[in-house]
Amino acid sequence: MEAQYISSEDNKIIKQINSLKMRKQRKKLGKFIVEGYRVIVDCLSSNSQIIDFVVFSSSAIESSEGKKLFKTLMLNHKVFEVPDKLFKKITETENPQGMLAVVNMIDFKLDTLLNKEDNSIFIILDRIQDPGNMGTIIRTAVAINAKAVILTKGSVDPYNSKTVRSTMGAVFNIPIIEIEDNSWVTALKENNIRLIGSTLDTQKSYLQIDYSGGLGIIIGNEANGIDPQLLEEVDEKVYIPIIGNIESLNASVAAGVLLYKAIEHVHK
Amino acid sequence: MEAQYISSEDNKIIKQINSLKMRKQRKKLGKFIVEGYRVIVDCLSSNSQIIDFVVFSSSAIESSEGKKLFKTLMLNHKVFEVPDKLFKKITETENPQGMLAVVNMIDFKLDTLLNKEDNSIFIILDRIQDPGNMGTIIRTAVAINAKAVILTKGSVDPYNSKTVRSTMGAVFNIPIIEIEDNSWVTALKENNIRLIGSTLDTQKSYLQIDYSGGLGIIIGNEANGIDPQLLEEVDEKVYIPIIGNIESLNASVAAGVLLYKAIEHVHK
Repeated sequence: MEAQYISSEDNKIIKQINSLKMRKQRKKLGKFIVEGYRVIVDCLSSNSQIIDFVVFSSSAIESSEGKKLFKTLMLNHKVFEVPDKLFKKITETENPQGMLAVVNMIDFKLDTLLNKEDNSIFIILDRIQDPGNMGTIIRTAVAINAKAVILTKGSVDPYNSKTVRSTMGAVFNIPIIEIEDNSWVTALKENNIRLIGSTLDTQKSYLQIDYSGGLGIIIGNEANGIDPQLLEEVDEKVYIPIIGNIESLNASVAAGVLLYKAIEHVHK
Repeated sequence: MEAQYISSEDNKIIKQINSLKMRKQRKKLGKFIVEGYRVIVDCLSSNSQIIDFVVFSSSAIESSEGKKLFKTLMLNHKVFEVPDKLFKKITETENPQGMLAVVNMIDFKLDTLLNKEDNSIFIILDRIQDPGNMGTIIRTAVAINAKAVILTKGSVDPYNSKTVRSTMGAVFNIPIIEIEDNSWVTALKENNIRLIGSTLDTQKSYLQIDYSGGLGIIIGNEANGIDPQLLEEVDEKVYIPIIGNIESLNASVAAGVLLYKAIEHVHK
């Protein structure tokens, strides 16, 4: 069996890949691009069904790790081969490995994840702007076994290539839910989930509160923190102490410190 | 008073700036470049003496925040003006703000920072490769008031533009010491500083150890962790639990979790 060969930029597969570089199109089609050997392998092992199709450059098929992956993918997936020159035109990475996959987003509904008896942690990212921070927090969310990551309106796209890369495969392992309004606040509260927000606007250290039960932990925008209106809904405002001469922690570090503190009573 | 105007790429100031884009030259000259309004202001307020000179583009001098900074700098520093077109050629940022400074590194000696009575935390970065991780950990190091950051041979340059940007000004507020050999191990141990290393090669969680006294906390390379030979010198090996389906934490997140745990007994 052979992969279908595409040599023209005008081919509709190539056009689709190019269109998926825009957030609007990703949203419309419900698909995104993942690049590189490692992340495609992660996707295969996490949830191979979401792979729509895979594209290899001719020389990637000949490479030692590429050859094996190519064979595996050929068993159950649509695979295309393109000349190296064409691959260079569609890749978004600086040092492309010659393989990318188009993957279907899963449209999780928050309601289906909620359960009054559940002691899960939900992570809410309020207008996080930096793709690296977003991806790193999604990675930490999977590490602590959070139930879902909720993104407020104005957050960076979790499916842009930099974010996906920073998740190190975690993007396939946790529901990511973008919600336009604050309906998630009521939904979480109705399910006995307490909202904890990291902010400088409090006297309470993150070491002084109780982390038992279901939690919604909110991490705010890098420059401006949590939206003031949202902050009013928070059950426990906490700060992470800064001892030395610096204004703030990096958002993904702050998230890591807070999230690991939140699971400490369970995993001690 | 007016800033000296430079219009030619062949000017020796411009040539020096271009040369400082290479690590070797930074090391040789003991200087590095910082870019943007915020970081120059941070440098001014942290340690203005280390500023060698500052370069503004013509339009940055006319901007509202640029004008004020320009006037302040003119009082005590060498300031150059270059046409916008020339600034674009020397900048390393995608959205330059039209201002950069050349700054002197401070050559800290580890010996002068050591003290047997001291309960300080030293952070050792063992061949960290990603500039964003390096910068973010330096930022966290300042946040917890660590005494110094020690970099082992093979680490990314703390003075490259991406690292400096990620430190958010912290690069001016903590001694950063690059050491070619493992002499720092003996030096720390002789000063009663216990070495704690984060690794997967242990049964002990980071929650199970004592963090009192002077500590040297080692964060290993993103892909390979702490060098095996160095790991043999570590007094306490600890892991940070990963509950969900992901291989590891981001290095700067792992560092943040561990460092905040280490200061918890003091700042509770």
